[in-house]
Amino acid sequence: MKLVQPVIYVLSVQLFGLAVLMLLCAVFGFFHAGPAAEGFVISSAMTLFVSGTLYFATRQPQVPPLSRRQAFLLTTVSWIGICVFAAIPFIVTNSVATVTDAVFEAVSGITTTGSTVMTDLDSADRAILLWRSGLQWIGGLGIVIMAIMLLPFLRVGGMQLFHTERIDRSERIVARPIQLARSIVGIYLVLTVACMVAYDMAGMDAFDAVNHAMTTVSTAGYSTRDASIGYYPQPAVLWVGIVFMIAGALPFAVYIAAVQGRPAALFTDPQIRLFVPALLAWGLVLGIWLSVTSDLPFEVAFRHALFSVTSIITTTGLVSTDYSAWGPFAAGVFLVIMFVGGCAGSTTGAVKIYRWQVLLIILRSFLGRMVMPSRIYSLSYGGRHVTEEVVVSVLAFLAVFAGSLAVFTLLLAATGLDLVTALSAAGSAISNVGPGLGTTIGPAGTFASLPDSAKWLLCAAMLLGRLEVFTVLVLFLPGFWRQ
Amino acid sequence: MKLVQPVIYVLSVQLFGLAVLMLLCAVFGFFHAGPAAEGFVISSAMTLFVSGTLYFATRQPQVPPLSRRQAFLLTTVSWIGICVFAAIPFIVTNSVATVTDAVFEAVSGITTTGSTVMTDLDSADRAILLWRSGLQWIGGLGIVIMAIMLLPFLRVGGMQLFHTERIDRSERIVARPIQLARSIVGIYLVLTVACMVAYDMAGMDAFDAVNHAMTTVSTAGYSTRDASIGYYPQPAVLWVGIVFMIAGALPFAVYIAAVQGRPAALFTDPQIRLFVPALLAWGLVLGIWLSVTSDLPFEVAFRHALFSVTSIITTTGLVSTDYSAWGPFAAGVFLVIMFVGGCAGSTTGAVKIYRWQVLLIILRSFLGRMVMPSRIYSLSYGGRHVTEEVVVSVLAFLAVFAGSLAVFTLLLAATGLDLVTALSAAGSAISNVGPGLGTTIGPAGTFASLPDSAKWLLCAAMLLGRLEVFTVLVLFLPGFWRQ
Repeated sequence: MKLVQPVIYVLSVQLFGLAVLMLLCAVFGFFHAGPAAEGFVISSAMTLFVSGTLYFATRQPQVPPLSRRQAFLLTTVSWIGICVFAAIPFIVTNSVATVTDAVFEAVSGITTTGSTVMTDLDSADRAILLWRSGLQWIGGLGIVIMAIMLLPFLRVGGMQLFHTERIDRSERIVARPIQLARSIVGIYLVLTVACMVAYDMAGMDAFDAVNHAMTTVSTAGYSTRDASIGYYPQPAVLWVGIVFMIAGALPFAVYIAAVQGRPAALFTDPQIRLFVPALLAWGLVLGIWLSVTSDLPFEVAFRHALFSVTSIITTTGLVSTDYSAWGPFAAGVFLVIMFVGGCAGSTTGAVKIYRWQVLLIILRSFLGRMVMPSRIYSLSYGGRHVTEEVVVSVLAFLAVFAGSLAVFTLLLAATGLDLVTALSAAGSAISNVGPGLGTTIGPAGTFASLPDSAKWLLCAAMLLGRLEVFTVLVLFLPGFWRQ
Repeated sequence: MKLVQPVIYVLSVQLFGLAVLMLLCAVFGFFHAGPAAEGFVISSAMTLFVSGTLYFATRQPQVPPLSRRQAFLLTTVSWIGICVFAAIPFIVTNSVATVTDAVFEAVSGITTTGSTVMTDLDSADRAILLWRSGLQWIGGLGIVIMAIMLLPFLRVGGMQLFHTERIDRSERIVARPIQLARSIVGIYLVLTVACMVAYDMAGMDAFDAVNHAMTTVSTAGYSTRDASIGYYPQPAVLWVGIVFMIAGALPFAVYIAAVQGRPAALFTDPQIRLFVPALLAWGLVLGIWLSVTSDLPFEVAFRHALFSVTSIITTTGLVSTDYSAWGPFAAGVFLVIMFVGGCAGSTTGAVKIYRWQVLLIILRSFLGRMVMPSRIYSLSYGGRHVTEEVVVSVLAFLAVFAGSLAVFTLLLAATGLDLVTALSAAGSAISNVGPGLGTTIGPAGTFASLPDSAKWLLCAAMLLGRLEVFTVLVLFLPGFWRQ
């Protein structure tokens, strides 16, 4: 009980915040006379009631700093808890058919995945559309804060490489990170507003610009249109999307450094120096392939190829055109780049670029050692020494990530999905991308027709991927629950 | 030149052995009055000529022991060299349509993969069928010798766990392993003859029993029938196959220990203790699934499920029935177990069971360390200490294996193969399994209709997998070629 009490306390505060957001959607709904407004009031009341009950049941005169174990527990509990309550408005407003669909849509939103079970978005209630975008926006913010302030301390999957000075190295999480959190929120807000203005100028209507800005900067991918961003024919809309998906995929720690007077960091950060050129290279390769194998002029082919590649690598999932019609090579490319991911401490999911870089460093030294065993190799990344612990963390992360992919593919195939659908659904969910491959869940489809069992499996996969796998797995260690 | 000369010298001796084997096939052909006999004489003469030229060009008064670098180079050069010459009989006898097909069939044979481009096997020349089986048999023997005598010394992918006392730990490979090699050949011969007799007693005709014994014990999978082993309706044939595929997948070091008076090793070896129960468990799960989802009685379903699972896990590839008709769950299972593999120092390919065990040990201690960073963890496997070097070796192997899978899948998709075919072909080739998934290269199909570019890619993948990836990769290090 001593372990759980402070965790529930923090959750109750988070749920209070969620209830406030529901009220904001209700207010928006009343102004636009949408029928969903009432549903948001009811949802908010329910959430407030639970939040208040938990708050008064667990509050303490003074909140003690969280222990390591509590930090792990809080991470998983709060993401699951928020997902459950975020599903309520979908149910109360009858926006989706079943409770399963509601939970799926909420999990896909909060985890910034962007797989949807909703069809006919163009005529959906605007308050609900705003809710979906809002979930992704707070989900994106949540992951950046978690990645910068919590994961390095918990040593998840090599994130200890990004220990900042603001975080104490002792066994207790200290209570000084308010300033850091404020910087992150500020930068996130600025990016979102800038994206909003840019979309508006590029030709989107105001409501769409607001929504797409929220789901672009969070690299999440919900749209207000069935055709996704492809609804807008203006080339400028795609270019705005490309720029701000990349902006969301860069390390927020570097933005903070830039704001604090070190803008050169944007050009010297080792992640950015690989990520941006690699993304452009994939886009170029696919653009050339597409213009050669189709009738499209190169400019059009390159724009759609770069947008699609950016959307998948940054794990956003916005769709400019049905790229599943580009043939098996393109399908192979999308299956592979699904796992690349953005930078550490960004809103992106998947493996992330620094782990690939550390892997390359490890392999190079490892191969060298095979040939010349007596030489001494010292590994460094971005000027920091790569310790044995980081090496094992990164490699173990990759192994567990691949293992999870295999397990979920198998389980999804057991629900009756064909292999391409099962594999791409599992990959898309664990990497928090959004669309899969094939005719059902591909860029032109939705997840609506999947069996309920598959939807629950995908919910688990989305959360597992979002929490970087290990954060969840430790809870299954018997040792975790013994003191 | 000093680097290459002894390597070519050893290769010339190996090619001499290959030429002798060709003559044996010619003799067999003359006795059975098959038209291919002449072709084997011609092939043998060509091989002898090249072998002799290389021998006299590189022979030295005294052969110095090979260096580390030469051992790496020899491994790759001799496997490729033998494959090239092993392809000659297919060309000279017009058994396949193109040079590409001949090389593919030879590589698939020598690497004990078992993917074939030949159709109408039932009416093929028997000398050619014997040649195919013979290639797999010497390939299986070659890999066992390499895995026990060479890889631990070269520290490839964690094989240093299996350092035997007979191998010197210094920089030079010593010349004492004759006795060890003799034991391996003896055990391999006994297993093959036992399998032959068992197949014969189970109802196979003599020629088929000889051929299938050679391709079963080597866990390789070429058959003399288009229907593979499914040609024989007798249940006993399948049970013999199951037993001897497992026999080929067990660690030969344990057989040697058993012969030397320690038979208990067969029951205490940590690999065997996981491998056999795991294999039975997969077979049982799939058997139950199959009997529930089909009309087959449980005994029949279990027999075919266990045979198929054994065939794929041991990377053999013999086919008792078209398991691609068992639905998406079964397809998912086969895609996953393709990568399991048998024990270290066996004839199997793929990742191999000890790497999975080491991975589990690593992950358990790693998760524990995340929760309680101050505790000290000591890793051991089968009574041996798992050093940091082994940890990194095993994890790096898994990462490179997965990376190779992704690269080959992508390249194969670029040749126009659909995603399931491309992925399963890449996996099947790197793991040296044989059949893939889908209608083209599935258990009921052949690789004949693939484009030439895909066949060459698969040749590269088969060799890369057979040589445990790293053995080949070191050759691409610039540092390898500098002294």
